[in-house]
Amino acid sequence: MFGDLKLTSDSPIYRQISHYIRDLIESGALRKGVRLPSTRELSHILKVSRNTVILAYQELQDDSLIENIHGQGAYVSAARAREGRKPVFDWPRRINDYGRKAWELNQTATAWQWRQGMIPFNSLAPDESIFEIEEIKRAFLNRIALEGEKLLNYGDAQGYRPLIEYLKHYLEDKGVDFQGKDLLITSGFTESFSLVMAALTNPGDRVICENPTHNLALDIMKLSGLQVNGVPMREDGIDPDELERALAQPGVKLGFIMPSYHNPTGLVMAPEKRLKVLELFGKYQVPLVEEGFNEELRHSGAHVSPLIALAGSGNGVVCLGSFSKILFPGIRIGWIGGDARLIAYLERIKFYRNIYTSLLDQAVLYEYLQNGRFQQYLKRAKKLYREKYEQALALARQYIPCRRVWGDGGLHLLIELDGIDARQLLADCCADGVLFTPGDIFYTDGSGAGSLRLSVSRVDRWEMEQGFAIIGEAIRRIKNGTGVSDDVGIHQNARPGQ
Amino acid sequence: MFGDLKLTSDSPIYRQISHYIRDLIESGALRKGVRLPSTRELSHILKVSRNTVILAYQELQDDSLIENIHGQGAYVSAARAREGRKPVFDWPRRINDYGRKAWELNQTATAWQWRQGMIPFNSLAPDESIFEIEEIKRAFLNRIALEGEKLLNYGDAQGYRPLIEYLKHYLEDKGVDFQGKDLLITSGFTESFSLVMAALTNPGDRVICENPTHNLALDIMKLSGLQVNGVPMREDGIDPDELERALAQPGVKLGFIMPSYHNPTGLVMAPEKRLKVLELFGKYQVPLVEEGFNEELRHSGAHVSPLIALAGSGNGVVCLGSFSKILFPGIRIGWIGGDARLIAYLERIKFYRNIYTSLLDQAVLYEYLQNGRFQQYLKRAKKLYREKYEQALALARQYIPCRRVWGDGGLHLLIELDGIDARQLLADCCADGVLFTPGDIFYTDGSGAGSLRLSVSRVDRWEMEQGFAIIGEAIRRIKNGTGVSDDVGIHQNARPGQ
Repeated sequence: MFGDLKLTSDSPIYRQISHYIRDLIESGALRKGVRLPSTRELSHILKVSRNTVILAYQELQDDSLIENIHGQGAYVSAARAREGRKPVFDWPRRINDYGRKAWELNQTATAWQWRQGMIPFNSLAPDESIFEIEEIKRAFLNRIALEGEKLLNYGDAQGYRPLIEYLKHYLEDKGVDFQGKDLLITSGFTESFSLVMAALTNPGDRVICENPTHNLALDIMKLSGLQVNGVPMREDGIDPDELERALAQPGVKLGFIMPSYHNPTGLVMAPEKRLKVLELFGKYQVPLVEEGFNEELRHSGAHVSPLIALAGSGNGVVCLGSFSKILFPGIRIGWIGGDARLIAYLERIKFYRNIYTSLLDQAVLYEYLQNGRFQQYLKRAKKLYREKYEQALALARQYIPCRRVWGDGGLHLLIELDGIDARQLLADCCADGVLFTPGDIFYTDGSGAGSLRLSVSRVDRWEMEQGFAIIGEAIRRIKNGTGVSDDVGIHQNARPGQ
Repeated sequence: MFGDLKLTSDSPIYRQISHYIRDLIESGALRKGVRLPSTRELSHILKVSRNTVILAYQELQDDSLIENIHGQGAYVSAARAREGRKPVFDWPRRINDYGRKAWELNQTATAWQWRQGMIPFNSLAPDESIFEIEEIKRAFLNRIALEGEKLLNYGDAQGYRPLIEYLKHYLEDKGVDFQGKDLLITSGFTESFSLVMAALTNPGDRVICENPTHNLALDIMKLSGLQVNGVPMREDGIDPDELERALAQPGVKLGFIMPSYHNPTGLVMAPEKRLKVLELFGKYQVPLVEEGFNEELRHSGAHVSPLIALAGSGNGVVCLGSFSKILFPGIRIGWIGGDARLIAYLERIKFYRNIYTSLLDQAVLYEYLQNGRFQQYLKRAKKLYREKYEQALALARQYIPCRRVWGDGGLHLLIELDGIDARQLLADCCADGVLFTPGDIFYTDGSGAGSLRLSVSRVDRWEMEQGFAIIGEAIRRIKNGTGVSDDVGIHQNARPGQ
């Protein structure tokens, strides 16, 4: 820019310089607040004496075009800088249907606002008190010492090789047969799910899932323009007869199932049912996408096999995993395991979305996992969350009048209210400092207005008791307000007198 | 799973247990390699004596159904475990058009393979020797000490607040007026570009860019099904007359421009041309997406204003930035600056793709930037890359017979060959251990077969000289092979006698 100035012998050099800069400022090419080169730099660029540049800057300063900030240099000042070009666009009008749909889905899901001091039964974030910060530090320092330069430079779309290998072994230990299969590192479940939908579905396609189902997955399916066919949940998981009816329809592209700690019900699908589900998807030749991220929380020593393990050498199951819910959500790592050719396609799509997942995150997570801390952490996490879950169950029964409490454990309860709208209840509870997730966002068919999800991962016992009491109180107020007497509809898991 | 066993008084307890587990194994519900609960755990779960469980496990072991691995516990053994359900899918057939297009685009772009020891003129990765590993360590330790628990837990889709504020100030220092504008943190340029395309375009829409243009942006536009209208580049940037002709067509959705260190030509758009471009986009009311990531490499002390700064209080420019090319690509951080309402939409779309960008990356980058190391790093990086660029220019002129060398600086040169196909040349050079990027991938109209991009960020002077000599030699071989004499078509930037 300054190098473009051609000096002539027509007029004093310093004046040619100041005129050139004046033109740049007045044309808008140099804008308010921009720093000019130092006098030394400019004298070097133009090959003139520094004094000549000092004179030129002095003239610009006298004209209020630039100002000298002591110790920092010369800046273009406000006074005369031209107000650039100003086309003003009405952006919301230019957003396409996809963008508008994302907006609307997000509005529905977050129509409530967290304020400082609220009790957050809406949050699935892990309890920070069990984070092993010192171990994360150590993992970081180890990895950066071993291969810092590599980690700070470009990586592969598929992921950080040692982490891929670690996770494959981890899944092999759960019985997954990796012959002909492969694994892609992603930035968490949401990315995994969104990549799979992007590769396999077209707008208008029919997909099958549990009803209720993971709200984010549901939103992504809606955003992808899919016809979502929700199959009802029974006490022990998805209803197999209804599932078969759904699978028998023409044009079903895929199914999405959460066999362990289903969100939002908290149910764990029984082993026999897992086999049944797998058999049905196999019978109708429909691929099955499995979210398996919470199975690490199983209380007993052994685990129920994930569907992808039960499928053996078959390649019909795609498994989406992540440690976010139990480990560190701030470290954005998830994975997709499945047929190697599918994984190769997913890798290309990921490449065009964000090239690859943070190498630093991948390396820190790998180092943490492989030094054996994860197993110890898991023990503590299981103990903590089991205690919380049991407290929550007992307190819900004590304080919250309802029709049913769903769940086998995990991080949350699904409460089925008795004739009360959960959004109305939420409005009341918000005013009293309690947040929860209204159940409707999990339902594929617009139902669920009478249910709510209470996550307890982030709250302590005191908050749980306070919060549940407030919810119970609000329910009674609503009932009384509508003339429903206190003891109507309180049975099963709820205690009379509350 | 084990808790589901209902014990009766019909037969010995240990046998009921062993039969139950045998059924689980033979049905496939417990698969090969799965660890059983320890005898202590199972006795606790079933409320039986530990000896009973030991007997049951002994029986299973005798039947080769499980095996004891010393010190680790009992595992389901291979012998009898059932080979789960096996539907086998032909996955490539199930991939949709989008996935197939991603595959094909990627194939074209990466038809060559890097092998150990090759000279990588295809890589834009920064020179690792200038990475400040110690400073990154310090930044990490500082941030994790200050707010480790927060960083490991959930973050906001828009980004880590301190980094957003830092980047806003950084851009304000370049003259950007943030009134009515906002900033979204992304996982790098590719994500930024892909989000903007996702929010604003529909398949079939017309978009304008420079020809040649950034190959990844071009691929993403093709993947989005857009009609890409490339406007020719002149010696000083995009041709304004051709640009106006393109803008005057009906249905132009947006334009994409790289005003600084244009990829692949390395040109920097002159200040007057920037104003002209802005005026034209304003006149036709077409929004302009600007990639500005390399402007930090400007050799003079002052910078040319980015287009979004020149636009003043107008909101027609969306600016995509990143420090990846000059700082640490392994830390995946980019940003989108623009109209606040547009940013809000983009944030929702990002939310449904990966929730948010790694908090750890964001916090480490923020800490590194704000402690002032960035400015010092930048000085060293500028000096290093300027030297490399000048060496590259001199060596290219010395060794590579060609029609033209494009570029004003930065990290790469674009070489226009004289009647030689760059893919053929690449095949020859690959065999001799030299990689470069064939120019055709940057062109919107299938042209560019006679050009190649040489990136010099990652190579030293010795490699540069070796590599350029090999390329020159290969060119001469091809010419001789096709009967073209050595001195034909060598003019302008190339030296005679080469």
